Amino acid sequence: MLKKELDFVRERQKEILLLGSAQSLLYWDLETYMPKKGIEGRSETLGLLSGIAHEKLIDAKFWKMIKKLRKANLKGDDELMVERLKRDVGKARKLSKEFVEEITRVNSKATHAWEEAKKKDKFEIFEPHLKKVVELQRKKAELYGIGKGKNKLYDALLDDYEEGMNSEILEKEFAKLKEGILEILRKVKSSEKYKKQKISALKGEFEREKQMELLKDVWNRMGLQEEYSRIDFSAHPFSSRIGDNDVRMTVAIRENPLFAFESGTHEAGHTLYSYNFPEKHKYDFLGWEPSLGMHESQSRFWENMIGKGKSFWRFYFPKFKDKFNLKCGLDEFYHEVNFVHPNLIRIESDELHYCLHVILRFEIEKGLMDGSIKVQELDRIWNGKIKEYLELDVPNNSKGVLQDVHWSQGYIGYFPTYLLGTIYSCQIYDAMNKDFNVDGEVESGNYKKIIEWLKEKIHKQGRKMNSEELIKKATGRGLDAECFLNYLNKKYGELYGF
Amino acid sequence: MLKKELDFVRERQKEILLLGSAQSLLYWDLETYMPKKGIEGRSETLGLLSGIAHEKLIDAKFWKMIKKLRKANLKGDDELMVERLKRDVGKARKLSKEFVEEITRVNSKATHAWEEAKKKDKFEIFEPHLKKVVELQRKKAELYGIGKGKNKLYDALLDDYEEGMNSEILEKEFAKLKEGILEILRKVKSSEKYKKQKISALKGEFEREKQMELLKDVWNRMGLQEEYSRIDFSAHPFSSRIGDNDVRMTVAIRENPLFAFESGTHEAGHTLYSYNFPEKHKYDFLGWEPSLGMHESQSRFWENMIGKGKSFWRFYFPKFKDKFNLKCGLDEFYHEVNFVHPNLIRIESDELHYCLHVILRFEIEKGLMDGSIKVQELDRIWNGKIKEYLELDVPNNSKGVLQDVHWSQGYIGYFPTYLLGTIYSCQIYDAMNKDFNVDGEVESGNYKKIIEWLKEKIHKQGRKMNSEELIKKATGRGLDAECFLNYLNKKYGELYGF
Repeated sequence: MLKKELDFVRERQKEILLLGSAQSLLYWDLETYMPKKGIEGRSETLGLLSGIAHEKLIDAKFWKMIKKLRKANLKGDDELMVERLKRDVGKARKLSKEFVEEITRVNSKATHAWEEAKKKDKFEIFEPHLKKVVELQRKKAELYGIGKGKNKLYDALLDDYEEGMNSEILEKEFAKLKEGILEILRKVKSSEKYKKQKISALKGEFEREKQMELLKDVWNRMGLQEEYSRIDFSAHPFSSRIGDNDVRMTVAIRENPLFAFESGTHEAGHTLYSYNFPEKHKYDFLGWEPSLGMHESQSRFWENMIGKGKSFWRFYFPKFKDKFNLKCGLDEFYHEVNFVHPNLIRIESDELHYCLHVILRFEIEKGLMDGSIKVQELDRIWNGKIKEYLELDVPNNSKGVLQDVHWSQGYIGYFPTYLLGTIYSCQIYDAMNKDFNVDGEVESGNYKKIIEWLKEKIHKQGRKMNSEELIKKATGRGLDAECFLNYLNKKYGELYGF
Repeated sequence: MLKKELDFVRERQKEILLLGSAQSLLYWDLETYMPKKGIEGRSETLGLLSGIAHEKLIDAKFWKMIKKLRKANLKGDDELMVERLKRDVGKARKLSKEFVEEITRVNSKATHAWEEAKKKDKFEIFEPHLKKVVELQRKKAELYGIGKGKNKLYDALLDDYEEGMNSEILEKEFAKLKEGILEILRKVKSSEKYKKQKISALKGEFEREKQMELLKDVWNRMGLQEEYSRIDFSAHPFSSRIGDNDVRMTVAIRENPLFAFESGTHEAGHTLYSYNFPEKHKYDFLGWEPSLGMHESQSRFWENMIGKGKSFWRFYFPKFKDKFNLKCGLDEFYHEVNFVHPNLIRIESDELHYCLHVILRFEIEKGLMDGSIKVQELDRIWNGKIKEYLELDVPNNSKGVLQDVHWSQGYIGYFPTYLLGTIYSCQIYDAMNKDFNVDGEVESGNYKKIIEWLKEKIHKQGRKMNSEELIKKATGRGLDAECFLNYLNKKYGELYGF
């Protein structure tokens, strides 16, 4: 039934995904091995490919086939696939090829300007570019025309990254979280342990090559193999699915001496997910994550729930002690890994302050979209919020509003997915613990049960459900900040004695 | 005048070149960093991109514009550009998108079969695939329909790599060369020095990292910089222009202990050429080499004329001696670098036997095209010719007919360009020596004058002339095997005392 139409839409999806595969490699290479001066040609190539992919996506014949298939009485995966196509293609068709190309050009220039601005610590270099980016994103949101109420523009963008989510839900959950975290922070900061805390074990150098050896050990235990994936260095760590059987991650070196290892554990979580996408759907629109928040749940799970837990360090501390000639004991080391300490930089922050970092970005983004915040006052507003939430003075914009690349690339509505992922990761950890003793496995360095659980409940589901449905099915509950707050309370209460 | 048409064809050329840029990166990555299991997805992506590029090339509107522009009275570069377009697009339009995709699929499978066949030393694994490849190449040649006489199919393919060349000219020049080289080999082999020659300095290990340091020194002196180019490792060395300001080369480790350094010097010659293509034409069809033979002239120039010369080693031998703790003297080392010794493997052969390797491939290829040689007898014929020209017995097909990847990828008519490049490189060296004392510069490690000469006379010319015209303009003579024979006679006469 409708074989011709099904064949056509399958072939078209495959083409679009293969073009995405080429784009992913071009990006990966740009961040890892590309000679510096190749950037201009690279931007041109990327622009061309996004134009071609967009054309294939919005093409009238494709749309006609999708509409025809929707009217047919399809069942099972075919029905789901056509629903996803209707949603994705319907949205894309709101944007002309010329508009998408303009966005690509403007974002590309903005990203260069951002790099320069960050290097020279001059927000004014970035400002005019960001204005254009914001303008185009507002226009895009208007063209989508899917949001409602005060945050309708913001919600239209958010939907690109987190299908079905809206800022009403986020505001409610994030408010709960903010209040709870500020309360925990008050307790932490008034504790004796906090007042006396001083970095000692995590001082000095942790040689990069040795960190990589330990990371590769984690990586192997997570079931990642060199035949299917690889690790390289880049300025910002990331994980990218290049194509079938080819997922790559990068690590970076930062001030925090364990940054490579910790961010590597994070990226390995992403990599494992992308690697386990359902084989059957590798060339259709059901074959990936339902949302960025869900993808982030996997990286945050490995980074925090596993990688910052006592059981993990019971297994790995002896190896670290040996490799880096540490003088301290496990308890001291474990505490330092989890030191609560406000940091100006989001990705170098502890679990508590990380959330505040995301929330302040969420608040600013919404303001940019509803017009209550202007680009020219962005640094002032940023610094005010950092003072209010983190009690820190921002010494320069490079360590302030210019720290993240996202806005320069037009990613507005993306940041909340980091926090959603964090919340989901804790719900997953909780639910998993009902099935077996997770920490018991982690302590012995055996991740097989964990991987199996994630694979069955999350990875293999692909995009058949949206994130809300998926997390409900996997954990028995929808988005629930409470669960994460309980975890934080318990963990930091034990660490700081309250 | 005809601004609209000119803008259109310029934009279209740019698109095709940018697609080529994406393809080049996908190939480069396949050979360097891609996880092994990614190959299937990679082949699909490459297939898709060649299909898209071919569609853009043969599109009716593009062709109409080109024809319109040809009738206009264009001058200068525009006129030349339209001529090249007429030639390239006219040829491409003989092949349907489906046919090109079939070729891509068949070649991709054949390449995998070739790899397996080579590894297992079983020609019969490759044989059925090669049959299909040859069939499709014959069909392609028929569709082109541009050759004449006995070798009309072969010449049609040759024209893809060496515009304007035909096998009548090649047969004449190669016959001269074969005869001359066999004569030189007779003299070498009857010399006392040959009878007593024994590898001594070039025995043992030349650590790969140290070879790379020395190669990077050559590379720097050639004006190559990390901002624009890079060196990696791969199974087969190659150089590839990814895009504007981004040219990459690879080196490989082989039995010959200096293989990395020597093949690196070869690839650096390619890289320098690709890097110096005329900026003005970076996004049109005048912006690259006129033929593969001309490209090869640049690699062979640096590999042989420079890198195997006494002056080069006067400069580099002390560094080698120091780095590798050599016990020998310069003369001994220089002679060993140039030892005449038949080798079963083309790319590990000395200057004399290398030519015979190419000539025997040329003879076989022609036979495959005119039907006088069948695929199933290929190994027998190969071994016979190796016996006849090199006086060697082929112990297995991996070191015989299966050694080169070219045929599996459908490259029939490609091999002669290696010899053309070798001949051109000697003519260039000769002509350069009329302008200044090349060896004097090389001896001091200063390549500036050489680079300037190559840049002006060859690199910057792009594809405005064909190779025959370009070599005439640069050296005062057309293709001239005699010049190369004189060089060989003199060099090996001195080395072996005849």
